[in-house]
Amino acid sequence: MSEHEKYMRIAVELAKGGTGFVNPNPLVGAVIVKNGRVIGSGYHRRYGELHAERNAFASCTESAEGADMYVTLEPCCHYGKTPPCTEAVIENKIKRVFIGSSDPNPKVAGKGAAILREHGTEVYEGILKNECDALNEIFFHYISEQTPFVILKYAMTADGKTATRTGASKWITSDESRMNVQMTRKRTAAVMTGIGTVLADDPMLTCRLEEPGIHTRIICDSSLRIPQDCNIIKTAREYPTCIATVSEDAEKISHLESLGAHIIKTSSSDGKVNLKELMSVLAVEYHIDSVLIEGGSELAYSALKSGIVNKLQMYIAPKIFGGVSAKSAVGGEGVALPDEAFRLSGPVISHIGDDILVEYRVGGE
Amino acid sequence: MSEHEKYMRIAVELAKGGTGFVNPNPLVGAVIVKNGRVIGSGYHRRYGELHAERNAFASCTESAEGADMYVTLEPCCHYGKTPPCTEAVIENKIKRVFIGSSDPNPKVAGKGAAILREHGTEVYEGILKNECDALNEIFFHYISEQTPFVILKYAMTADGKTATRTGASKWITSDESRMNVQMTRKRTAAVMTGIGTVLADDPMLTCRLEEPGIHTRIICDSSLRIPQDCNIIKTAREYPTCIATVSEDAEKISHLESLGAHIIKTSSSDGKVNLKELMSVLAVEYHIDSVLIEGGSELAYSALKSGIVNKLQMYIAPKIFGGVSAKSAVGGEGVALPDEAFRLSGPVISHIGDDILVEYRVGGE
Repeated sequence: MSEHEKYMRIAVELAKGGTGFVNPNPLVGAVIVKNGRVIGSGYHRRYGELHAERNAFASCTESAEGADMYVTLEPCCHYGKTPPCTEAVIENKIKRVFIGSSDPNPKVAGKGAAILREHGTEVYEGILKNECDALNEIFFHYISEQTPFVILKYAMTADGKTATRTGASKWITSDESRMNVQMTRKRTAAVMTGIGTVLADDPMLTCRLEEPGIHTRIICDSSLRIPQDCNIIKTAREYPTCIATVSEDAEKISHLESLGAHIIKTSSSDGKVNLKELMSVLAVEYHIDSVLIEGGSELAYSALKSGIVNKLQMYIAPKIFGGVSAKSAVGGEGVALPDEAFRLSGPVISHIGDDILVEYRVGGE
Repeated sequence: MSEHEKYMRIAVELAKGGTGFVNPNPLVGAVIVKNGRVIGSGYHRRYGELHAERNAFASCTESAEGADMYVTLEPCCHYGKTPPCTEAVIENKIKRVFIGSSDPNPKVAGKGAAILREHGTEVYEGILKNECDALNEIFFHYISEQTPFVILKYAMTADGKTATRTGASKWITSDESRMNVQMTRKRTAAVMTGIGTVLADDPMLTCRLEEPGIHTRIICDSSLRIPQDCNIIKTAREYPTCIATVSEDAEKISHLESLGAHIIKTSSSDGKVNLKELMSVLAVEYHIDSVLIEGGSELAYSALKSGIVNKLQMYIAPKIFGGVSAKSAVGGEGVALPDEAFRLSGPVISHIGDDILVEYRVGGE
């Protein structure tokens, strides 16, 4: 590992500190190095607060003049909630800037690096690019597609079951896997499930980690069957809550709104919520950059069929339930022929507790 | 890697040459080294023929006196189909013997090494032990348990389906995975399926590799529904074929026998073939050391429930079929509660073509 990669890796680790708090901004970390010593470091901590570069300058123990900066993402050059970071780099007379990812935001798109070079700063791009890009798969997708990055997650046995024949499903996976799901909830701006899961399990859908971040709970409830005394509605004032529906029941809608829930009405897709339209509303009106779907097998199928899913997370427990009537992970009508299958690619495999986590991109290579 | 491991690795690779031909004997390879040069090598090629050590001596280009021998399995010391290999080692005045696996056969069990030492040969055990043991998981199980080593194999989508809602299943996995299944057929002494699969697909269950080895086809057919014009019965004189049943239909039995099939009658287990009893008959009467189960979801469940399965091979294709009515890998009644699940352990993951192969041991750690 080169010296440059060593400092960039520190910046990557710092960037992760913002997980759950910066959406829909990217995770960014920065390290300032002078004469072989780290003299300052910082990361983007929370949406609306200072960017990583400015936090790094603020932490400096001495003048940054002539120093090197390592930053995981190309510095911004436009006025947003904060002034452009390129200005701070130039004002502080940084000699060399090492960049991980280029910015996919059309407002920046290589301009940050260009402005720095115009002012005589040396710029080196693509340091630990893969690691830096991996920090922000959500942000990159959101900025370029204007829709949330959608992760479909399910846990199943090695024979593909999500419950036994009696419907019992607590628990299929290990404690470690369930903790990992909490980490994913923290990383995503919203968690979505179907009304079936709400009626069956009465979940909270909050993140149970100590520093949970902020995420929105979304319930797909085409005919507004959600009970007003369920946990989701009872806590709708504490935790952001959206109910997506095609129902026209004005009375029920205003009642749910009075309890703190946001109601999102979409057009009907075979009588159900139009998920593509819902994603667009979430991105544009709610600035939600990412959605984790943890629903039943019907919602999983609808989500795949509507083409909104970007990533699949499949937890496989070292168990077999058997049972012709036991539920499996994706239900709905299903495809008729093998060639019509939804395609997955690029599997990444992790061992979590006793389980295997396989992450796929949805779509071909 | 040490010099010793280098030579043992050659012996391991040689041993694999016997795959499909030596059952129920072990796969064994041997290399003879003198003054830093390999002067002879061999492996057990076919059941009933010379053992690896004797093939290695026969290949020597000069006297083996004072040479080292690397052999993947402890040399035998008893009279079987061939005289003991320990005698050959002593007669040829080998100076040092390096052994991979110890022999689990109670007739040998450390005696081979002891006899060599008594005759002044230096013996070193456990060289590349894991690799050598892996060669013979079938043999070790068969010798110590007196039952076949049973592998349950299935191919499924990432949502656990083995067919679409219409029952179509050609094909789920890649060419490479299907070739790998052929390799497994070659490695195992028998392939077993259920009558449902025979009636639905009319398979041959032969190995389609160029050098296919010899394996027995076993059909579980409790009420002898097998048609006499199916591919299995039509080729019963060319390829060893057993039909396991609980039927008492003497006429059908003698007719099938006249066509070349072996009929194995077992006691009834809920009206079905008693699989535990069947495995015992296969081991004792047919000297079958290994069975690959490639059946439908009913047979998979019966096999797991009867406790005969030692290893699970699960191929996962990068596809999703969906469908509440689509079949999944293990059917039958299924367990009622998650705690009653069949337990798996020790996953080994391989990438084969676009698919993932997960191999588990059946049972806890």
